[in-house]
Amino acid sequence: MARKVGGRTTSSVDPRVVRTRNDILRTTLQVLMDEGWDAVTHQHIAQVAGYSKATVYNHWRSRADLIRDAFLRLRDMPHHVPTGDLRTDLIQEVTTFRTGMDERPLARALCVLVNLTDAAPELDEVRDRLVTDGERLVRELLAPVLHGTELEAATLMLCGAVLHSAMMHGEPPGDDVIASAVDLTLRAIGRN
Amino acid sequence: MARKVGGRTTSSVDPRVVRTRNDILRTTLQVLMDEGWDAVTHQHIAQVAGYSKATVYNHWRSRADLIRDAFLRLRDMPHHVPTGDLRTDLIQEVTTFRTGMDERPLARALCVLVNLTDAAPELDEVRDRLVTDGERLVRELLAPVLHGTELEAATLMLCGAVLHSAMMHGEPPGDDVIASAVDLTLRAIGRN
Repeated sequence: MARKVGGRTTSSVDPRVVRTRNDILRTTLQVLMDEGWDAVTHQHIAQVAGYSKATVYNHWRSRADLIRDAFLRLRDMPHHVPTGDLRTDLIQEVTTFRTGMDERPLARALCVLVNLTDAAPELDEVRDRLVTDGERLVRELLAPVLHGTELEAATLMLCGAVLHSAMMHGEPPGDDVIASAVDLTLRAIGRN
Repeated sequence: MARKVGGRTTSSVDPRVVRTRNDILRTTLQVLMDEGWDAVTHQHIAQVAGYSKATVYNHWRSRADLIRDAFLRLRDMPHHVPTGDLRTDLIQEVTTFRTGMDERPLARALCVLVNLTDAAPELDEVRDRLVTDGERLVRELLAPVLHGTELEAATLMLCGAVLHSAMMHGEPPGDDVIASAVDLTLRAIGRN
């Protein structure tokens, strides 16, 4: 089956190429977070990732392409596979997002992205794609029972609870808080 | 009446000193956001703010003190004055937070702070103080009607909806979305 890596369908791509691309994109995100935007040069990324500068150039002609793909790789977040039970599905999907925030440098990466969009407005599109993908399942699960601004509000509240906790409290919410957030939402829509 | 500036009670402080401190702290936050942590030196801040290096040293002996106070100044966010009507109070307070996100460089400043806490764990305390102050009124308004993990969840959801929208969607939520978020919360607790 075809699977997506960095936005490309890679069914017929040499696994070594996939590995190389992933190594370089992971390094790019790390350098961006640790050393900032100016440190992302083909030369420096090649050196840190342990590849030749030519290899990096071969995949990404510009720094902008490299940075864009490094962030888009964050789209490959796991998502919960819905079971049909709304409470279970919401809890599982929000928990999956929480785990992503906890295990990956996702909160910091998103912060770097937010700061960069001021200097590089072309990254707005990258942020929007990440957010749309990230919110999709929560929105789809709620769409049969909420609509309009209430659907928007509930999606922002469930995703925002995780983001706010991870970023501002320094740790993502616990299982009990996630369950309470979902239960409050279900009670609001008469589905408890 | 005594009022707090940068964490200090300034009832008897010369207004010129207050202005100087505010100028320098505002400049520090701006330089931190635009040029990064390394650019925050007494020399550079003095130059950008238009004061002597001695003045900056006179108020803040170390870069860490200067950076801490620059962030703590964000605590001087306006808050809604409660009327006693829960729906009105929640909507007004969440709207006040939204306005803060919109008019001040608050979203970006918080992102810079989140990124810095990795390199400078002493800023954890600053972040915690900002968050506690920021959430206080929402939490107090909900405390009579929710408790435990549900109080925690609802606070995270209301504050998180604004943060998530401002940071991840690139604009804070509209009035209609804020009203929907509050109405969902009130419906969940049987107060609609």
